[in-house]
Amino acid sequence: MTYKLGIDIGGTKIRVILLDNKNKPIFGFNISTPKNKKLFLESLENAIKNIIKEHKISGIGIGLPGIVDVKRGVLIKAPNLPFLNNWQAKKFFLKFSRNIEIDNDSRCFVLAEAKLGAGRGFKNIVGLTIGTGIGGGIIIDRKIYHGENNSAGEFGHIIIDNNKTFEQLSAKEAFIKYGDRSEIIGIGIANIINILNPDIVILGGGGIISGKVNISTIRSIAKKYIMSPLAKNTPIIKGKLGEDSQAIGASLLLK
Amino acid sequence: MTYKLGIDIGGTKIRVILLDNKNKPIFGFNISTPKNKKLFLESLENAIKNIIKEHKISGIGIGLPGIVDVKRGVLIKAPNLPFLNNWQAKKFFLKFSRNIEIDNDSRCFVLAEAKLGAGRGFKNIVGLTIGTGIGGGIIIDRKIYHGENNSAGEFGHIIIDNNKTFEQLSAKEAFIKYGDRSEIIGIGIANIINILNPDIVILGGGGIISGKVNISTIRSIAKKYIMSPLAKNTPIIKGKLGEDSQAIGASLLLK
Repeated sequence: MTYKLGIDIGGTKIRVILLDNKNKPIFGFNISTPKNKKLFLESLENAIKNIIKEHKISGIGIGLPGIVDVKRGVLIKAPNLPFLNNWQAKKFFLKFSRNIEIDNDSRCFVLAEAKLGAGRGFKNIVGLTIGTGIGGGIIIDRKIYHGENNSAGEFGHIIIDNNKTFEQLSAKEAFIKYGDRSEIIGIGIANIINILNPDIVILGGGGIISGKVNISTIRSIAKKYIMSPLAKNTPIIKGKLGEDSQAIGASLLLK
Repeated sequence: MTYKLGIDIGGTKIRVILLDNKNKPIFGFNISTPKNKKLFLESLENAIKNIIKEHKISGIGIGLPGIVDVKRGVLIKAPNLPFLNNWQAKKFFLKFSRNIEIDNDSRCFVLAEAKLGAGRGFKNIVGLTIGTGIGGGIIIDRKIYHGENNSAGEFGHIIIDNNKTFEQLSAKEAFIKYGDRSEIIGIGIANIINILNPDIVILGGGGIISGKVNISTIRSIAKKYIMSPLAKNTPIIKGKLGEDSQAIGASLLLK
C-alpha cells in the first residue's frame, strides 16, 4: 500500500496528513509554524522523515501561503511568512520523493472541495477563504485556473471601498476592530460573481469554520449586488472538508 | 463566393458588415437604432434582405447589448433598449440563414481582438469597453468564457467605492459630470487583474476610440493596485480593430 502526503503550510500551523489511494485521510498532525527559516526547514524535514520511515509514499503535495510559481516550484511571496519569500519549495521536497506538486493554499482548498466536498459535480467554482487574510482559488472547466503569473484569484486585493481592499475591510484585523464584516464580504462576493459567474461559491478559512461570519447575511447582501437575475441564485455555501481541506487539496495536486 | 454577415446592435446604432472567407470586411453600413420593436425589426429585416439579394451568405453573427442566453438564442435583458428584453433573437434571424450565432457585444469585441487584433497569440484575455456603459468579455484558454448564466464579465457592476459600481463611477454619465475618470478605471482594471490575471487587457468602446480616456493614467493607477509583482506588468492596450470590432467579432462566432 502506498500513500500520498498532503501538507498545508499556514502562518500559524503546518498541517500534515497521510491519504490512502482513495484520497481518504489515514492520519494527520499539526506543527506550530516556526518563525525562522532554519527551524522551519528542520521541523518539516523531521516530520516527513518520521512518516516515510513507516509508510511508503507515492508523492507529496504542498499548499503554500502566498504567490506560488507552480512550474518552477518556488514560493514567490509569502506575506505572513516573509522568511519564505523566494523559497525553492519543490527543490526542498524533492529530497523525499520524486513526485512533488505545490500550489497556493486557497487553490488547494477549492480543489479539495471541488473533487471531494461541496463542489462535487460543478464545473466552474470559486473558493474564498476568510481568516487572517482573504484568499481565493478558481476552478474553470474542472481545473485550477492560475492565470498568466500564477496570481489569479487574489480576491483579497480588490478595492471595494475608499481605496481599501477586500482583505483590509473584512479579514481578521477588521473583524477584531469592527465585529462581523459579513456585509462587506457579501459585496466582495457579488463582485466576484459579477466577473466570474461561477456555478457555486465555497467558503472556508478560520472565520467560516469557527462560525463567526454570518453566511446568511453574506447571501442576502451578495444577492442585492449581483447584476444578472439568474446569477443572483448562485449558491454560496460553507466547505464540507473543514480544517483538512487545504492539506487534502494539496495531495490532490499529485498526478 | 460566400460571405459572413456580422451585426452589432448598439443603443444608438446598428453596424452591419459583410466579411469574406478570410474575415476581411468587404463593406459595412450603419442604421440608427429605432426606438420601438416594430420599427427595429423592420429596419433589420430590410437591411438583411437587401444584402442577401446580392450576396450569398454562409451565416449571420450578432452582437447584442445585454445579457444573452447563447444556447436558447435569447436576449434576456437589454438595459439601454428595454423593448428588446426577452427578444427571441436567434429565431428572428433564422428566417435569413440556418447558421446563426449570438452573444453579448463586449464578448464579440474581445473575440475579434483575440483572433484578429491586439490579442492575437494570447491565451487568457480581458476585454473592457468604456462608453455609455462599461462592458466586458473574458477569453480563457482561447475561448469565450460565459460562466454559468452567461453573465461572466459584467465588470461594469462591480462595487468599487461607496456602494457605487464601476459603471456608475466611470462610464459616460460620470465622464460628463466629472471629466476623465481614468483613475477609477485604473482601479477597476486592477481589480479585474487581481481576480483573473490575464495575459493582456484590451480596451475598446466610445471612450477609448475617441481618445477621451487617458490610457497612461489607467496603466499607472492599475499598476499601483495590482498585488502580484509580475502581474503589475500586464499589458493594458487599446484594441486594434476600431469601430468594426464588435461586428467582426459577431461574425467570428460562426463556425
